[in-house]
Amino acid sequence: MIPTVDIATRVYNHKWKIDPIVRSLIDTDFYKLLMCQSVFRNRPDVDVEFSLINRTKAIRLADLIDEGELREQLDHVRSLRLARGESTWLRGNTFYGKRQMFRSDFMTFLENLQLPEYELQKKDGQYELTFHGRWPEVMLWEIPALAIIMELRSRAVLRDMGRFELQVLYARAMTRLWEKIEALRALGPDLRIADFGTRRRHSFLWQDWCVQAMSEGLGNADQGGRFIGTSNCLIAMRRDIEAIGTNAHELPMVYAALADTDAELRQAPYKVLADWHEEHDGNLRIMLPDTYGTRGFLDGAPDWLAGWTGLRVDSGDPVAITEYAIAWWKSRGEDPTQKLVIFSDGLDVAEIKSLFERFRGRVKPSFGWGTLLTNDFRGLVPGDGLAPFSLVCKAVAANGEPTVKLSDNPAKATGPAELIEHYKQVFGVGEQAAQTVRV
Amino acid sequence: MIPTVDIATRVYNHKWKIDPIVRSLIDTDFYKLLMCQSVFRNRPDVDVEFSLINRTKAIRLADLIDEGELREQLDHVRSLRLARGESTWLRGNTFYGKRQMFRSDFMTFLENLQLPEYELQKKDGQYELTFHGRWPEVMLWEIPALAIIMELRSRAVLRDMGRFELQVLYARAMTRLWEKIEALRALGPDLRIADFGTRRRHSFLWQDWCVQAMSEGLGNADQGGRFIGTSNCLIAMRRDIEAIGTNAHELPMVYAALADTDAELRQAPYKVLADWHEEHDGNLRIMLPDTYGTRGFLDGAPDWLAGWTGLRVDSGDPVAITEYAIAWWKSRGEDPTQKLVIFSDGLDVAEIKSLFERFRGRVKPSFGWGTLLTNDFRGLVPGDGLAPFSLVCKAVAANGEPTVKLSDNPAKATGPAELIEHYKQVFGVGEQAAQTVRV
Repeated sequence: MIPTVDIATRVYNHKWKIDPIVRSLIDTDFYKLLMCQSVFRNRPDVDVEFSLINRTKAIRLADLIDEGELREQLDHVRSLRLARGESTWLRGNTFYGKRQMFRSDFMTFLENLQLPEYELQKKDGQYELTFHGRWPEVMLWEIPALAIIMELRSRAVLRDMGRFELQVLYARAMTRLWEKIEALRALGPDLRIADFGTRRRHSFLWQDWCVQAMSEGLGNADQGGRFIGTSNCLIAMRRDIEAIGTNAHELPMVYAALADTDAELRQAPYKVLADWHEEHDGNLRIMLPDTYGTRGFLDGAPDWLAGWTGLRVDSGDPVAITEYAIAWWKSRGEDPTQKLVIFSDGLDVAEIKSLFERFRGRVKPSFGWGTLLTNDFRGLVPGDGLAPFSLVCKAVAANGEPTVKLSDNPAKATGPAELIEHYKQVFGVGEQAAQTVRV
Repeated sequence: MIPTVDIATRVYNHKWKIDPIVRSLIDTDFYKLLMCQSVFRNRPDVDVEFSLINRTKAIRLADLIDEGELREQLDHVRSLRLARGESTWLRGNTFYGKRQMFRSDFMTFLENLQLPEYELQKKDGQYELTFHGRWPEVMLWEIPALAIIMELRSRAVLRDMGRFELQVLYARAMTRLWEKIEALRALGPDLRIADFGTRRRHSFLWQDWCVQAMSEGLGNADQGGRFIGTSNCLIAMRRDIEAIGTNAHELPMVYAALADTDAELRQAPYKVLADWHEEHDGNLRIMLPDTYGTRGFLDGAPDWLAGWTGLRVDSGDPVAITEYAIAWWKSRGEDPTQKLVIFSDGLDVAEIKSLFERFRGRVKPSFGWGTLLTNDFRGLVPGDGLAPFSLVCKAVAANGEPTVKLSDNPAKATGPAELIEHYKQVFGVGEQAAQTVRV
């Protein structure tokens, strides 16, 4: 007998009682833990500030979400400690075929961790939510903070719906996802796709459902299927699915902010990966080259990076970037057909299909499907009140210095304007084609 | 907290264990109990034979449904007794505003009832399922027998589906029903509609869901809404919804079979209603005039029948029949705008809409929505294996004499061919326009 949850009923019941959104410290992305271990080893004492930013200003979160409820949810996360079973799973599990991925000193740190305090203010209809303190602690706020805001917004919109309206809403969302899964299955047995949707999920239960639907509909990759896993550790643990992920922008952003000279700044993204190279191999050696422009990053990269397993494409025109990377690998004497390219920027079925068909056989394409896997309720309620929106939680300062991210899409750039200009000069980033940030 | 059931999970679990389909003697249509009481009073010792007939021969039930499983389900019904709470509900409830609808001697009979034995054989890929014995006992097999065969067929088709495929199947069916409910709501606040879908439901849990969705989506009539109730007593009791229904073809069919002369035969349908008239008033005084042709029935009807509350249209062309009835009421000095006309033949939203718009204001139209409320899974599985089909369980003989039903649609006629001809002569039924029996 398989346990199950009737999502609509749970949502209906939310109307009467507090129901914690984040119930576990490992209800977070696997790569946060990998990065945290790296930070804990290499830069444990850096003081950072993370800030939650809603890029979709039209959604006035402070009008939708009650401040008291938000504080209760955030306080609940601060009350969490790593549970014994979670610790056992992290210590004992095999990730990417490797045992004891997490060092003992890091596990001890995690077992004793309480997330640091938060600061919350309302401004212009938005919440200003910031965290600061030691980097390895503060960084673990990112995912729960995003998940809480996303789900409180869902709950706010669902609050006035009747029980059967809710059931039908979820019925429609399930039908929609299943049709996407059927379309993905039609792409053939070589597809490789993962759930990257924790941060902007509609709700925890919904992500859990989506992951299981992917697992059943596409088959798990370790049994010959197409579904390679979920970024969410808690769901991976509970559903016995592979946890996956590698690294993200916060590493080069913080390393860059700590640079004293332009020369150091220019080397910062490579320094991150040199630290990573020491610790990991195989599927964990995936570059994320776009923090300060992919072209400049590849042009200036040391040769040992060309030997890495692959790269992740998270902004800009994915076709142009992948073509550039293919040419770059060839120029460094590497065989692109053996390289993993993970697409993870605003994907939905049409993009996945088109990228898969274009690059199959030329590289090993793989897909990290995020928001439109775990939060596609577009058009399902009046006023489209459940459409996903662009919420991020980023490192904004390190040891008092502001951070900057450029990416391959100027619409995704973050940081003070004058610093953005300076970084563009240092990294040789010229005009970029703006692309709509979908989610 | 409202209890709920995840239908897909229950279906999934059916795969491993026996799960009784009919779990209560009142999981039956309310009018069976009303008719049973009438029979118990007026014709308790008539010996009848009921037979289950699948009019959709292309669906080879004996190939789909395991005989052992079918016997287990039928045996389970024979193990049922009226539960204390059920008896209390029948004795104490108000039906159509009237208390103590059921007489004490009848309740005692019901409390002691065990359904009689059944006979089951396979022939030409179909099951021959027959019941015989005393009329008030045998007649109560009709609904559970139909519900069991319908649901075993659903289970057989669903058996090889995965858990998430099942969830999506139900998600699609829920979405479809909700869209129908939204279309019905758009017809305006005067609509009156009931669930008549017990006998050909997809499953008990699905009917239960459909009734609740109707209740939430259309509002209950006793609180100003459009949903006037369900024919299913168990669901009515559990969900605190009005139980509704009046009488059916078996009464005139058996009375007719017992007639010794053509004159008695001609009077049989009126004799049924004379017995009924004695016992009931108000919303229970609804004629079902089509057993041997509506026109002849109305033309020959005594004047007191014109004073009844209304009629039910269950075969033939509903527009022509209603127009005929309107003219008939006028000819008898009655005001048709005060008459209830209950449409119950193969309805779906389009027919409901068209009949409602045509007859609103001219009569009081009302709708008994059956199979396409509780069993619309058309097109939702490969090969359309869940499409509803035309299964009936009818009285085929009374005291050894075969029964006959003509109805207003020759495709629905039942009985030996030579007797059908004889009945047609006696009741003056000429050529009838055949209409496809949809469900």
